[in-house]
Amino acid sequence: MSDRLEDYLKGLLPREMLSRSSAVLGSQLNSIRNLFKQRRIPNLGWSDGVIELLLKLLSMMDVDKDPEGVRIGEREARVASPLISELASGFCHGVGRSGALIAPQPKAPGASILYELSNWCALDAMQKFGAPNMKSAIVSPVATGMSLALVLAAARDASGGDRNTVVFPRVDHDSPLKAIHLANLRTKVVQGQICGDAVRVSIDDIDKGVDKNCCAILSTTTFFPPREPDSIKEIAKIASEHKVFHIINNAYGVQSREIMRDIRSAADAGRVDAVVQSTDKNFLTAVGGAIIASPDEKLVENIAACYAGRASASPIYQFLAAILSLGIEGYEKLRDTQESNRSLLQKLLGEVADSYGERLLNVRSPIACAMTVSEVEPSLLGGVLYSLRLSGPRVIQSGRSGSCCENYPESYIVMNAAIGSKEADIIKAVAKLREGLNQASARKTEKGDQRHRSSVLHQ
Amino acid sequence: MSDRLEDYLKGLLPREMLSRSSAVLGSQLNSIRNLFKQRRIPNLGWSDGVIELLLKLLSMMDVDKDPEGVRIGEREARVASPLISELASGFCHGVGRSGALIAPQPKAPGASILYELSNWCALDAMQKFGAPNMKSAIVSPVATGMSLALVLAAARDASGGDRNTVVFPRVDHDSPLKAIHLANLRTKVVQGQICGDAVRVSIDDIDKGVDKNCCAILSTTTFFPPREPDSIKEIAKIASEHKVFHIINNAYGVQSREIMRDIRSAADAGRVDAVVQSTDKNFLTAVGGAIIASPDEKLVENIAACYAGRASASPIYQFLAAILSLGIEGYEKLRDTQESNRSLLQKLLGEVADSYGERLLNVRSPIACAMTVSEVEPSLLGGVLYSLRLSGPRVIQSGRSGSCCENYPESYIVMNAAIGSKEADIIKAVAKLREGLNQASARKTEKGDQRHRSSVLHQ
Amino acid sequence: MSDRLEDYLKGLLPREMLSRSSAVLGSQLNSIRNLFKQRRIPNLGWSDGVIELLLKLLSMMDVDKDPEGVRIGEREARVASPLISELASGFCHGVGRSGALIAPQPKAPGASILYELSNWCALDAMQKFGAPNMKSAIVSPVATGMSLALVLAAARDASGGDRNTVVFPRVDHDSPLKAIHLANLRTKVVQGQICGDAVRVSIDDIDKGVDKNCCAILSTTTFFPPREPDSIKEIAKIASEHKVFHIINNAYGVQSREIMRDIRSAADAGRVDAVVQSTDKNFLTAVGGAIIASPDEKLVENIAACYAGRASASPIYQFLAAILSLGIEGYEKLRDTQESNRSLLQKLLGEVADSYGERLLNVRSPIACAMTVSEVEPSLLGGVLYSLRLSGPRVIQSGRSGSCCENYPESYIVMNAAIGSKEADIIKAVAKLREGLNQASARKTEKGDQRHRSSVLHQ
Amino acid sequence: MSDRLEDYLKGLLPREMLSRSSAVLGSQLNSIRNLFKQRRIPNLGWSDGVIELLLKLLSMMDVDKDPEGVRIGEREARVASPLISELASGFCHGVGRSGALIAPQPKAPGASILYELSNWCALDAMQKFGAPNMKSAIVSPVATGMSLALVLAAARDASGGDRNTVVFPRVDHDSPLKAIHLANLRTKVVQGQICGDAVRVSIDDIDKGVDKNCCAILSTTTFFPPREPDSIKEIAKIASEHKVFHIINNAYGVQSREIMRDIRSAADAGRVDAVVQSTDKNFLTAVGGAIIASPDEKLVENIAACYAGRASASPIYQFLAAILSLGIEGYEKLRDTQESNRSLLQKLLGEVADSYGERLLNVRSPIACAMTVSEVEPSLLGGVLYSLRLSGPRVIQSGRSGSCCENYPESYIVMNAAIGSKEADIIKAVAKLREGLNQASARKTEKGDQRHRSSVLHQ
Repeated sequence: MSDRLEDYLKGLLPREMLSRSSAVLGSQLNSIRNLFKQRRIPNLGWSDGVIELLLKLLSMMDVDKDPEGVRIGEREARVASPLISELASGFCHGVGRSGALIAPQPKAPGASILYELSNWCALDAMQKFGAPNMKSAIVSPVATGMSLALVLAAARDASGGDRNTVVFPRVDHDSPLKAIHLANLRTKVVQGQICGDAVRVSIDDIDKGVDKNCCAILSTTTFFPPREPDSIKEIAKIASEHKVFHIINNAYGVQSREIMRDIRSAADAGRVDAVVQSTDKNFLTAVGGAIIASPDEKLVENIAACYAGRASASPIYQFLAAILSLGIEGYEKLRDTQESNRSLLQKLLGEVADSYGERLLNVRSPIACAMTVSEVEPSLLGGVLYSLRLSGPRVIQSGRSGSCCENYPESYIVMNAAIGSKEADIIKAVAKLREGLNQASARKTEKGDQRHRSSVLHQ
Repeated sequence: MSDRLEDYLKGLLPREMLSRSSAVLGSQLNSIRNLFKQRRIPNLGWSDGVIELLLKLLSMMDVDKDPEGVRIGEREARVASPLISELASGFCHGVGRSGALIAPQPKAPGASILYELSNWCALDAMQKFGAPNMKSAIVSPVATGMSLALVLAAARDASGGDRNTVVFPRVDHDSPLKAIHLANLRTKVVQGQICGDAVRVSIDDIDKGVDKNCCAILSTTTFFPPREPDSIKEIAKIASEHKVFHIINNAYGVQSREIMRDIRSAADAGRVDAVVQSTDKNFLTAVGGAIIASPDEKLVENIAACYAGRASASPIYQFLAAILSLGIEGYEKLRDTQESNRSLLQKLLGEVADSYGERLLNVRSPIACAMTVSEVEPSLLGGVLYSLRLSGPRVIQSGRSGSCCENYPESYIVMNAAIGSKEADIIKAVAKLREGLNQASARKTEKGDQRHRSSVLHQ
Repeated sequence: MSDRLEDYLKGLLPREMLSRSSAVLGSQLNSIRNLFKQRRIPNLGWSDGVIELLLKLLSMMDVDKDPEGVRIGEREARVASPLISELASGFCHGVGRSGALIAPQPKAPGASILYELSNWCALDAMQKFGAPNMKSAIVSPVATGMSLALVLAAARDASGGDRNTVVFPRVDHDSPLKAIHLANLRTKVVQGQICGDAVRVSIDDIDKGVDKNCCAILSTTTFFPPREPDSIKEIAKIASEHKVFHIINNAYGVQSREIMRDIRSAADAGRVDAVVQSTDKNFLTAVGGAIIASPDEKLVENIAACYAGRASASPIYQFLAAILSLGIEGYEKLRDTQESNRSLLQKLLGEVADSYGERLLNVRSPIACAMTVSEVEPSLLGGVLYSLRLSGPRVIQSGRSGSCCENYPESYIVMNAAIGSKEADIIKAVAKLREGLNQASARKTEKGDQRHRSSVLHQ
Repeated sequence: MSDRLEDYLKGLLPREMLSRSSAVLGSQLNSIRNLFKQRRIPNLGWSDGVIELLLKLLSMMDVDKDPEGVRIGEREARVASPLISELASGFCHGVGRSGALIAPQPKAPGASILYELSNWCALDAMQKFGAPNMKSAIVSPVATGMSLALVLAAARDASGGDRNTVVFPRVDHDSPLKAIHLANLRTKVVQGQICGDAVRVSIDDIDKGVDKNCCAILSTTTFFPPREPDSIKEIAKIASEHKVFHIINNAYGVQSREIMRDIRSAADAGRVDAVVQSTDKNFLTAVGGAIIASPDEKLVENIAACYAGRASASPIYQFLAAILSLGIEGYEKLRDTQESNRSLLQKLLGEVADSYGERLLNVRSPIACAMTVSEVEPSLLGGVLYSLRLSGPRVIQSGRSGSCCENYPESYIVMNAAIGSKEADIIKAVAKLREGLNQASARKTEKGDQRHRSSVLHQ
């Protein structure tokens, strides 16, 4: 467009302004051209304006926008009102074909290019952010849980009919269990063990869990302390040895350089078939998509082939928009902030612990911190913090589900310093925690005076 | 808001203007209030402005919008830029919880209400548009194919471990097959039979297909002629008798009063466990969602429970926006137009047939019409129509896949008069067909003169 | 962009889809290219999507979007938040320079092109819609009233210091009077005369009004019956003879082929210096702009030079968007509808008159119709219609201001069939009028029974 | 809305989530309620989401949105397409009536409230940001230049017919001159005098300029060095003594606490009739509006009464949105940054001066800094900086217009540290200046070698 813009606009403006306008527009169109040519994440993030232009141009390639076209199919992206098209950013045909999620859709060349570019950027993200040994990736139009189901189904298919158990180092989270179930596989939970403050799943136990019925090991990199990340390098070796699939639930691990190093090492040292990560938790999109990456191109195709029918384009363009907005440099800066916020959280939480007779749990976790809750009722504290509009802390009572093991002896609270948080968020959150502890403590005293305590509070 | 608006605004405007402004705004807010109270589709469709206001108010209830909140979770709907939130219409938390798709999400009260309302409207749509015997429905955040997979998984679970085949009256479409496969079930195809021009699947053959391994019958109401809709009432009786699930793939059947009558009768006469329909094909949204409806409330809950983790809110708000925009009356008007377009298509296509030495196939289909293609090369015609920018016609060569049976003797073209099409679309499409036939015929003659014909044309 | 699109996208899509996508996008970009080259209104209106793309591309040429630029001026289109830029559709620099409204603004090449194109389209509109003898036109960034002030100031300047009265055939409207006053000129009103039902301003009286102090005649083409359009052809001759300016307030006259013929004839037969018309009343934009057209290019420049400083770009892009959306054909269709609605209104109002003992006023007016109001209190009827939410009718009591003459003997109601109205609007409006007459009549009876009548009702 | 939200939503969500959603939405609606009640700028700025909601609710009060209304006027906010309404943020009726700009418009109660609130906020801004002695203010729908014309017309009217000169302490800017001209007044320029580096207009000369023909003095607070701000306190005394109007062109002065103190003192010490300031230069909106403020309520009404007809609502809602986005605290923070940027600019420019054999001009200016340009050609430097994409610097050759006096002896460059600039902008701009000086210096040398110099460079 801008190449010959000056020809078209001749006479509308003085020559030097024309050349300036052409340069200004050209700088922005160049970003789009480079994306088309290079098919990777730009170094510098784009302005929202350029991203909007890209999405607009792509959506204008879908045939429902063809001013000269006539449409006679049962599905032609007709919409109930202009608003509906706007709510889909113009990608009314979604992505994929009934027979193949990642195949180009003839009625939607624009959405097809959108999807291709998104997949290239997803692979680039995996490689540049720490796992260069990944060879293929797609943006899955469903979030982490459902994406795990697709991966598990592909693993199941590749394993033949006999192998139908998934060895699952315990994580107290429903979503992976549901994924295993949807694929019609059985979960074989390997219990967490208490090691000092930490909860770890023993490599030996995992190894023992893998028998001739085992189809895959589903390991986890990111969960709440005291549960530590799985030793995925060791698990990769086990998987390699036993010739079973190794699928890593890396839900919010891309943000952490440390965890991405683990993934790289694991894939170098043993078997890693697929790594699944949330687009929203790592790349600051809305909930609804995931990246499925693998060192094996063919496997990614097989996973995509498990998806039945077309899909909403929303998770796709939301991911592409987010990663273009961030750029490589922007993402690395967010990671720097995440790391310094993590340190700050530990420092401030340590001070809180000192003031209130608590202590930090000594657990490896690149994103979260946990502190004991022994001086107030955990459930009471939870309720107080909710009413103080502090969102996100997990208060877990000793022995209850959440610790990924039997009988964890401490009650505790977990707080996160996740990507996208600002320093001020950490500071304000800890201040709210102090206020919450004070309130919970005051109520406890009242209650204590009354010599009876409602059991409701424990729920 | 409007109730006491006049108090707040006192002194800003003359009294009578204030009361008028309050009446005008009030009329619109009343629509929203009524939706909240009645939880069903309005009779008259809403303006885009009121729908936007509803979505805005709901998204402003999610806790990421709380100006007094502090957020410390690993997932707090932080976004890469303001554009990202806009691309998700503010519903950054998606819908659902990791453990339960249709459970309220504490961080997203607004999205949770959105989802509840959408599900109520989905049920209302099923009931008002022809199947009052449905008792529960949800908007599934994935399209028809993946939604079938969820339903099949629930059927599988309910059937115990032994029953693992799905009896499938043949439809030449990949998406249901993939759904069966994802749920780890096996497909038992029942062949279509040629009956005059029509292709039907014999009830006896279906009955024979149901054995002790059968978990479910997956029937289909809408496909392209010559394949006729399945006799779902008879299938419902068989399912009832054999105590197997009966799942109806009603992909684009809600638009047809005739097909909805079939569904109602089937559910009255025998067993219908779940009916799955596309939101985009029936309600003019973008691709990406489906309605799963059932006469059995508990079953719908079990189906939803098969979904692993949270989901994108996009398919949900796109459906709600579309159905509010249409309203009951608007939808019935679209159905009227669909019916008259269907008649018009038959008439015009009949005239084409007369002119070009072809004939219409005599097949029951409330949405599409088919005409033989005997005087020109079918593949050549397909290519010509594509280059004429006619989108949607299916040209099928005799004997090729698409007819849902072995050795269908005719080549033919199928055209649709689907919901949302305008009369002018039908007229222009048939005109393009004439042009295409002329061009294909001219080329055939050229070719004929050359006494050899490229085999490429047949592909 | 699309020219070499296929090069950039090679490998992303199958070749034939690439060429299709390029064709679809190309068709739309061609519209933009043609506008740049031809600088006139397209024959067929554009989709909103293409208009949005045009505005986006233009706003991306302004230097505040330059990703490589650094800005150090006192005014650099910095905005308080992204929303502010959105509210201005990205044209944050407005249009014009401090010294010259229509000069290109170096910081805003995009907005400058926007303004140039808008002015070309404004001229094209005047010429194609009936006044081919106009030679120059601009979109004024202020509405009709303020635009008249600019024109009058230019006329004042050109007339030398002595001539400072404006002969004004009476129209009961404040805005032109204020325009005359702002330009520091004095108004010399020429009274309307009652001729049958009609109110006309006598050509002789106008002629007599033009003396050596006269700077300009300000005539009016569109007002409410019983006031008829001025005889602008005769006035043009007078202006020519006396060598005074003739400025036509053509507020909503472009919609009427009849009035545009009058303007053409006037400019052919005598002197017409400038014609001013509302963008919102004629071209269905929001309120805020006007077209100033003239057979004299230099005069338009002088008028523009009277504008002090830069201006908001909103009225400019709103006009351009509206005229591109309509296209020549779309506008002519709207005019057809306007004409048939005008006939319908007369017919329906005639029937009302028959039923209620009233009669239509016999007055030339291509847009409005008037009916006597003799059987109910006019003020009461006005109030009733307001409460019935009928917007726009004017109910005038005999002798009150509004008739443009002394002592008009009838009370009456005026209703319009203006451009953009639908047939249904006319029908519903007349139905509301009937309801209003019934209600007013019922109340009158009540009142009559009480043998006294509140004087409030007359206000 | 939120008050009884819980009633409407009962049963849709668990009770505690309902109360949370109601609290979150309530916090945001409270901002709107407070604005309605208090009619002043909030202390804390609003999120874009809340501002959008306010604009939406207001625009939904205009009668063109009435779902039960019927419209029969010549002007009913009909729009060419949905896009047109969007481009006007729904305020299709604009603001004002034909007879009175600030009167409520019966068809647009929402826009009328919008305008009222904007005017209250404009007054609040003037008072809180330094001029508490202002008693009335309006947001003018035209920018500074045209707003000055309105003020001058009101002054002219109030002064009777004889007084028709405006004493204008020289500022080399076209826009005020055009304003004086539009109001049909004559400009009496008072020359600037060179006082050291500074250019000042002598109070004695101004005093002498005021004779019996004088209608008003038009003083200026913000211009480029070496021109210093006028001594408005002294001018106010002169105006008071001679009983002439004193109008202050405070174009971008609200950002400066120092200049606002001057205005306050002037209005306390003598006569200040009206103060006009740009909305875009002070409040970071798009170009197109101004605030007209006065210690005299009646005068503001008279000024508004000079505006002929309705006006675009865009400048109004753009101002309101910007000031709500900033809030009092946000604005004061921007002022802090402006002040520190101004210091930084002086420091960095001083260093440049030292390196390149130039010196800073010693001139009072709270926003800009000037440095001599003696070692390179000023015009060459200007061209080089333009090509380096540095926007905003003014390079003035000695003796040329721009210095507001005869024969200013130095060539110089002016750079600004205006509100909204970031520290990084200042640093990058000075770096570009260094680069520009290097390039200009290199070229000069080349030229010097050639022993002749193109005169083109001086233009």
